[in-house]
Amino acid sequence: MGRAMQIDIGLIEAANERLAPVVRRTPLLGSPFLDEIAGRRLLVKPECLQHTGSFKFRGGWSAVSALPQEVRARGVIAYSSGNHAQGVAMAAKMHGVPAVIVMPADAPKLKLENTAALGAEVVLYDRVGGESREEVGTSIATARGLTLIRPYDEPQVIAGQGTCGLEIAEQAKADGVETADVLVCAGGGGLTSGIALALEARAPGLRARPVEPEDFDDVKRSLESGGIEHNDRQSGSICDAIITPAPGEITFPIMQRLCGPGIAVPEELCLRAMAAAFTRLKIVVEPGGAVALAAALYMPETVEGDAVIAVASGGNVDPEMFATAIQKYGDGA
Amino acid sequence: MGRAMQIDIGLIEAANERLAPVVRRTPLLGSPFLDEIAGRRLLVKPECLQHTGSFKFRGGWSAVSALPQEVRARGVIAYSSGNHAQGVAMAAKMHGVPAVIVMPADAPKLKLENTAALGAEVVLYDRVGGESREEVGTSIATARGLTLIRPYDEPQVIAGQGTCGLEIAEQAKADGVETADVLVCAGGGGLTSGIALALEARAPGLRARPVEPEDFDDVKRSLESGGIEHNDRQSGSICDAIITPAPGEITFPIMQRLCGPGIAVPEELCLRAMAAAFTRLKIVVEPGGAVALAAALYMPETVEGDAVIAVASGGNVDPEMFATAIQKYGDGA
Repeated sequence: MGRAMQIDIGLIEAANERLAPVVRRTPLLGSPFLDEIAGRRLLVKPECLQHTGSFKFRGGWSAVSALPQEVRARGVIAYSSGNHAQGVAMAAKMHGVPAVIVMPADAPKLKLENTAALGAEVVLYDRVGGESREEVGTSIATARGLTLIRPYDEPQVIAGQGTCGLEIAEQAKADGVETADVLVCAGGGGLTSGIALALEARAPGLRARPVEPEDFDDVKRSLESGGIEHNDRQSGSICDAIITPAPGEITFPIMQRLCGPGIAVPEELCLRAMAAAFTRLKIVVEPGGAVALAAALYMPETVEGDAVIAVASGGNVDPEMFATAIQKYGDGA
Repeated sequence: MGRAMQIDIGLIEAANERLAPVVRRTPLLGSPFLDEIAGRRLLVKPECLQHTGSFKFRGGWSAVSALPQEVRARGVIAYSSGNHAQGVAMAAKMHGVPAVIVMPADAPKLKLENTAALGAEVVLYDRVGGESREEVGTSIATARGLTLIRPYDEPQVIAGQGTCGLEIAEQAKADGVETADVLVCAGGGGLTSGIALALEARAPGLRARPVEPEDFDDVKRSLESGGIEHNDRQSGSICDAIITPAPGEITFPIMQRLCGPGIAVPEELCLRAMAAAFTRLKIVVEPGGAVALAAALYMPETVEGDAVIAVASGGNVDPEMFATAIQKYGDGA
């Protein structure tokens, strides 16, 4: 797709119109018990309740629906650790067009199965051994005439994720919150930059903050150094959904211009946050989808203001991992 | 409160206006994977996402907010296995008035703790030994001048639960569903009768169906016999939230007039439904809150029509029970 396209609130509003008939408008949740842990009012945007279990459906639908009909009809291709895969697969299925998804062979079984069950052709690559998913994806796209839908460095994907920010702006205002940090789970920065752009235009008192797992805090370090920094590793985290090599070329300048400092969260706090979300919000959050909530609950010193908003970005977690989290951290306090 | 009050759509609409500033408008969820299991389109109303983790907040708020100010100021009392307790406790807390909650000594620990943490005074009674919660509750209410908020046989409580039906009517229509069975977890019938009244007025193509655990199917048997039937036991079910002695004197005639036949669900299917909701909807449902979803998914022969709506009525489940369900039924298929 056209990466040179200008990304602004107009592109997000247009994506929002295309999404309106199909997107699930997730509510803002909260609990007095969580407010007490966080030490301030905490609102949670549960994108785990979105179609396919993560915000990625927004970007997938936005990108697929933006294609000219004859281009879309040839099909789309995506590479993803799982959530983008499902989002694109479902968007393609709902549009009645073929989808090829390039996934790491070590992705959670559930994500691999779901992607295939959504009608996509799944092609595996060796993430641990160092194969480049970009190269694998680009070569198949060229050979078959498919349109590559990048997971984050793609204007229409960023615009789609930004629709989550439009909802946050409106819902936070309705809940009486006009000044707050908005903590966003960050991988390549598509969701974070999209939300940041939406908030800039619609809720200037809300500031996006990228949140990452410790040891995979490329966005945080990039914001600190002023240049794109890479992670040493690309696997070995329970937060698999948001592990990417580095912030995107398109997303990074947006985050640099609009976001507050990044936050890096120890993995163990993600498990605790999953248990708290289970006990107090009745939602299922995956480890990578829980980093923002973990920071809001257990690292309150990293956040500013009387209120905080945390995006729970996905819920595609295996039963064993979830059972471990809720049994270990009991009633989630 | 005044039990002789007429219960009609006007009372539900008025409750809806009082609830509007505070209630969480839960979305209608669905998944192509669940549609496939159910053999028809399945929409789920996740009231587990409501404040305090169940629909009971609606009735609690409706009843507390309907009291004259000087009556409300003296405080309220409720008896409940847990979810009504939390709903009333939170409604009282938000109104700044005292609440006494009479709870069975064998209620789940989490529900006991949450009720106390919401500022209520918790009084325990011996459910297994046959103590009557009605007698315990009435005597305290009289002694202290508290208003008793009954869990279901109470017009303003039924009206509050009915607001869930108003939302279902509107959301189902927006999703293109105008004819369907609406499966509702039934204890004393407050939610079922409230929803039935709302649907009668706002979505006549939708028909409420009470769903209960096997061996505790008093509503089903009452609808069949035409008179109020009782359960032999009042404990010993994992579906503790919806175990009541018999349908209410107010709720039963409403259900008799408006509901389709009851459905009784084996407990084991509730655990399967909890796993399916975990995997496909990313919501946490307690066993008693899962009976309607279980019937929709695994007893499709009991349901009529091309679409079915299931209310997931609550999510207050202990971690051990939830872990058991998701580990036993894996990916929830």
